[in-house]
Amino acid sequence: MALLNTTQLIDAIAGKARKAGLELQNAPVEKINRALLSMAERLRAAGPSIKRENRKDLRAARMKNMAPAMLDRLTLSDKTITAMVRGVRDVAALKSPLGMEYERRRRPNGLVISKVRVPIGVIAIIYESRPNVTVDAAAICLKSGNAVILRGGSESLNSNIALADLFRASLKESGLPADAIQVVPVVDRSAVRHLLTLDGQIDCVIPRGGESLIRMVAETSRIPVIKHYKGVCHVYVSDRADLRKAIPIVVNAKVQRPSVCNAMETLLLDEGLPLGSRKEIIGALLDKNVVLFGDPASRNLAPGMKIATVDDWKAEYLDLRCAVRTVNGVHQAIDHINRYGSHHTDAIVTESAEESDVFVKGVDSSSVMVNASTRFADGGEYGMGCEIGISTDKLHARGPMGVDELTTYKWIVRGSGQVRK
Amino acid sequence: MALLNTTQLIDAIAGKARKAGLELQNAPVEKINRALLSMAERLRAAGPSIKRENRKDLRAARMKNMAPAMLDRLTLSDKTITAMVRGVRDVAALKSPLGMEYERRRRPNGLVISKVRVPIGVIAIIYESRPNVTVDAAAICLKSGNAVILRGGSESLNSNIALADLFRASLKESGLPADAIQVVPVVDRSAVRHLLTLDGQIDCVIPRGGESLIRMVAETSRIPVIKHYKGVCHVYVSDRADLRKAIPIVVNAKVQRPSVCNAMETLLLDEGLPLGSRKEIIGALLDKNVVLFGDPASRNLAPGMKIATVDDWKAEYLDLRCAVRTVNGVHQAIDHINRYGSHHTDAIVTESAEESDVFVKGVDSSSVMVNASTRFADGGEYGMGCEIGISTDKLHARGPMGVDELTTYKWIVRGSGQVRK
Repeated sequence: MALLNTTQLIDAIAGKARKAGLELQNAPVEKINRALLSMAERLRAAGPSIKRENRKDLRAARMKNMAPAMLDRLTLSDKTITAMVRGVRDVAALKSPLGMEYERRRRPNGLVISKVRVPIGVIAIIYESRPNVTVDAAAICLKSGNAVILRGGSESLNSNIALADLFRASLKESGLPADAIQVVPVVDRSAVRHLLTLDGQIDCVIPRGGESLIRMVAETSRIPVIKHYKGVCHVYVSDRADLRKAIPIVVNAKVQRPSVCNAMETLLLDEGLPLGSRKEIIGALLDKNVVLFGDPASRNLAPGMKIATVDDWKAEYLDLRCAVRTVNGVHQAIDHINRYGSHHTDAIVTESAEESDVFVKGVDSSSVMVNASTRFADGGEYGMGCEIGISTDKLHARGPMGVDELTTYKWIVRGSGQVRK
Repeated sequence: MALLNTTQLIDAIAGKARKAGLELQNAPVEKINRALLSMAERLRAAGPSIKRENRKDLRAARMKNMAPAMLDRLTLSDKTITAMVRGVRDVAALKSPLGMEYERRRRPNGLVISKVRVPIGVIAIIYESRPNVTVDAAAICLKSGNAVILRGGSESLNSNIALADLFRASLKESGLPADAIQVVPVVDRSAVRHLLTLDGQIDCVIPRGGESLIRMVAETSRIPVIKHYKGVCHVYVSDRADLRKAIPIVVNAKVQRPSVCNAMETLLLDEGLPLGSRKEIIGALLDKNVVLFGDPASRNLAPGMKIATVDDWKAEYLDLRCAVRTVNGVHQAIDHINRYGSHHTDAIVTESAEESDVFVKGVDSSSVMVNASTRFADGGEYGMGCEIGISTDKLHARGPMGVDELTTYKWIVRGSGQVRK
């Protein structure tokens, strides 16, 4: 076989994905579920060989002095493999969205018009070094009837190929096209750049990772991209808040897992709250060793609070830092969030239903919380069973994306010979 | 006031649109409908002044030797104005999609999660010289709660500004932000190019016009684009077709209005059809002066049929030309359509429910017709009340786009102090 160059290789992968995607459009739901259960079983049984391939990646990563946190994300242990197996089984058990009718109308001329849920077609996922994304993405895309092209980080290439090989065997065994799950086996960036031009073959790109990766994809791609750049999430504590709710919510939103996109990055305190209450909230964060950056009014609440600049209002710290601003009422809180936020997830703490309605309507974010921690913005917590990511875009999918969000629809018109007058 | 350069002007328009869009998120449906009725009334009353502005555009267009068909599209007559008034009233009467709940779940921890329909925010429409698009787009965007930036062809600038001024007065009168409807008042292409970089202010771009305009927008834009490049629509006549349905459908799809995107461009005839039937279908097209381009088997059906090349399979003729191919069964028809078509609208004529199901599932197009003319692919015919265009994209909206398709959703989570464990 002649060696392909990168461009030809990517063209071939995309062409095979399109073909597999078209075949999947006709696959019965039972066949898809059978393949998913087979994937889970093969994954369970292949633990030792998967870990062997993963150790190759880990060795190479250590030689490149990968940071411990990154090494941790790259590692496939028995525990992570068991979790992945359970994840695939959970996806198999989800209700299939395919074939669902959104609407059906009978027109005066007798035409019956229906709008039916169908797979999107071919999805490309571009992500960094976590091999568990390979498993989640393959399972969610298959469940929704889509072919997937997986382009993980170069650091996890051996792990990803080993995982995809297992899944491809399950597809074949179930009578489905193996090319519905493909890993891009080359690591140079030109492969991604070329992939992003193939808008005839690939229907949707989902980048996952750091902001610079996502910006590169969004700015290069001719294929529609669904993404979130970052999560600058807010909690606004109204002067009508119940402090017994506000304090646990603020603390949970900031410290329960500060490194993720739905953690709070800016706290908005209403100036109508009693000084003592505001000090109590700030004190609860300081007790958890949170470093605060405040506007002048907030800095009066605790000694030693650093000065916040506009950069702090826009910051996604992803650690135990937090910006604090004192605002005058719900409208100022909304303005701050719409101006500096990232349209990810924002919360209000208030006992006033009227005020929470204003907040819910006014905040232009994918998730809006009332008296709950921003940390709940997650497909699992929303009862979606799984998620492939969170979108802060407004088109197609917004917020957590599960199986349903990887579908589109087609219009089906059934007639008996009607022609247009 | 200092003069703004083009970039500053576009920035200012986009900033005002974002502000107006955020205000509209809170506007009650009744206020929006009142503004729409006021728009219809002002449009009705202002006929003479609108026509005066339109005559300026027509004079300039004639001096540039605009083609008669284009001049015709540019002209605002009493009849077109009456039709526009009726169109705006129809949009006012449509059910508002805003606030509709897609789903609502109560989670075991007591959180109530709902997914609620909301406006997209700011829509930019980029179109060519038809001023009626100005009216349709303004009405549909307002109905769906979106601010709109209208960038029509330079030839219709005076007409468009006059129309938008009327509508802005209605918005003001109804207590809504006038900047929810803005026309870009400059005609240089750099304005469009800059507009397409403002992904922070504009949420969605809809280009309407020729393929080259649409390609320019799709390839330049950093904002998500919803579009269709062209309509290469097929009718496949199966060997199980009823000829009394097939002939009228084939003729209607091709000749009723050949210049539009849902007209048939390629006819697929099954080789299992009796030779006489195939000749009859071809004869019906020849009777209507259709010029045919066929593959060898089809060329045997009528003397003088021209030879079809791959270019004909991909051609959007938009006139009385048609490609003809003889295929062997429904699967070959599906393969042809998925390979050469434009994912717009494709039809099968068959009496077999089993065969039509295979076709409906297998054809990867936004609309699939069974025993009906492709010409029905239209928002009005689908009972949507109006349309802003047709999408052959798979993300967000597919097929005819009406008011509903200009909405997105947000997740609202209502709790009573829940924190994540």
